[in-house]
Amino acid sequence: MPRIKLEIAYDGTDFHGFAKQRGLRTVQGVLEETLARILKCSVEVYGSGRTDAGVHARAQVVHFDVPYGPPADKYVYMLRRGLPRDVVAVRAEQVPDSFHARFSVRRKTYRYTVQTAPVPDIFTQRYSWHEPLALDIGRMRAEAVHLVGEHDFTSFCAAATPVEDKRRTLYRVDVVQDGSYVHIWCTGNGFLQYMVRIIAGTLVDAGAGRLRMSVRDILAACDRTRAGRTAPPWGLALWAVDYGTVDDAIRP
Amino acid sequence: MPRIKLEIAYDGTDFHGFAKQRGLRTVQGVLEETLARILKCSVEVYGSGRTDAGVHARAQVVHFDVPYGPPADKYVYMLRRGLPRDVVAVRAEQVPDSFHARFSVRRKTYRYTVQTAPVPDIFTQRYSWHEPLALDIGRMRAEAVHLVGEHDFTSFCAAATPVEDKRRTLYRVDVVQDGSYVHIWCTGNGFLQYMVRIIAGTLVDAGAGRLRMSVRDILAACDRTRAGRTAPPWGLALWAVDYGTVDDAIRP
Repeated sequence: MPRIKLEIAYDGTDFHGFAKQRGLRTVQGVLEETLARILKCSVEVYGSGRTDAGVHARAQVVHFDVPYGPPADKYVYMLRRGLPRDVVAVRAEQVPDSFHARFSVRRKTYRYTVQTAPVPDIFTQRYSWHEPLALDIGRMRAEAVHLVGEHDFTSFCAAATPVEDKRRTLYRVDVVQDGSYVHIWCTGNGFLQYMVRIIAGTLVDAGAGRLRMSVRDILAACDRTRAGRTAPPWGLALWAVDYGTVDDAIRP
Repeated sequence: MPRIKLEIAYDGTDFHGFAKQRGLRTVQGVLEETLARILKCSVEVYGSGRTDAGVHARAQVVHFDVPYGPPADKYVYMLRRGLPRDVVAVRAEQVPDSFHARFSVRRKTYRYTVQTAPVPDIFTQRYSWHEPLALDIGRMRAEAVHLVGEHDFTSFCAAATPVEDKRRTLYRVDVVQDGSYVHIWCTGNGFLQYMVRIIAGTLVDAGAGRLRMSVRDILAACDRTRAGRTAPPWGLALWAVDYGTVDDAIRP
């Protein structure tokens, strides 16, 4: 059975997250329904990982096996006609059976966007967190560096998360200003639930001068209550999933 | 009774247009409900004009009379807390009773945006019409000039429109390329139903080399069937409403 690797983008606004849930509109659910309609057989879709309700993706990666069907490069065209407007098929290719969208991941990159203008821009409000504050970018960067490297990210993870091992490695955390927007870029080998959103909430606290302890101490505390708020989902986008192949661009 | 002039922006995706309709979510309906909740009295809101279902506004203008209440400049702050995220209160001021959001309008500017990249950008797909075509901007401009001036716009108006006088004046029609986006800017003294969307559909036909007669002849025919398609609502935004006062910016 040929295995297809598919890159998709989606606007998370109207989805209850990526992962299938009975009776709710999810990205995985919509993809499987659309593929089943096109291929006239049921298809199981595996994603690189979940995204929470309301979170967007510029480049989520999934794979699926098909018993027959068109050459891989036709999927983009067929899916573009079959998918709703808030899911876009970007590219598809046939991959060896050893490829797995989730288990083969080497790195992921997320972008969290804050909009600091006094009045939110109506054309970006679905994709950015409006915090009309003067943010001290230097302060944010100075705190962000403590996150880079291998750490126990318990303080930056939803308290109820059942995962035992909360050690993850962040390769880069960049704070980039673009006019009234501030982008927080995180690249790592894995992410815990709400991790980027708690990092964003904490770095915004740092930029607003209201962080009570340094990120270094927050990490060391291994205590979710020490970090900042969980920033809202709509500012977050899964930007790139890197499998270590040459064509995986990590940053724009 | 003090009269308040309010500028709002909205994302039209989840609205059945501007004008109130029983049982449907509309911009006017949401504004009136929010003001009633804040002021604890019923308020009637008058807009500069309708926008169709799905059409956005960067700067729609409304007015309303209030029996009492805070100084005009407090409305923006109060409304920003009370309104849903897809309607933004931009600014408010007290105006003389002679001001009327609809009858005092001098000019309006609309922007229609086409996205021509092969793969639509997920972050702009709610605000642009995806037509993955190589558009000849020169051709589009050459046809657009025929629209400028006073004309009978019957060919560029929904066929069922009951308005008798379809003469309107367009002061400017500009076609502006910005990377893979093409913006069609229209400024005029009044617009008929679907007028900008039919102009956009026709100019895209011109740019794609499939216009069968020139815009000059289409205008002269006074026949809706001669013009191009009605472009979809999500590419359109009401950009500015000009009342002839100094602070009304027509273009960004």
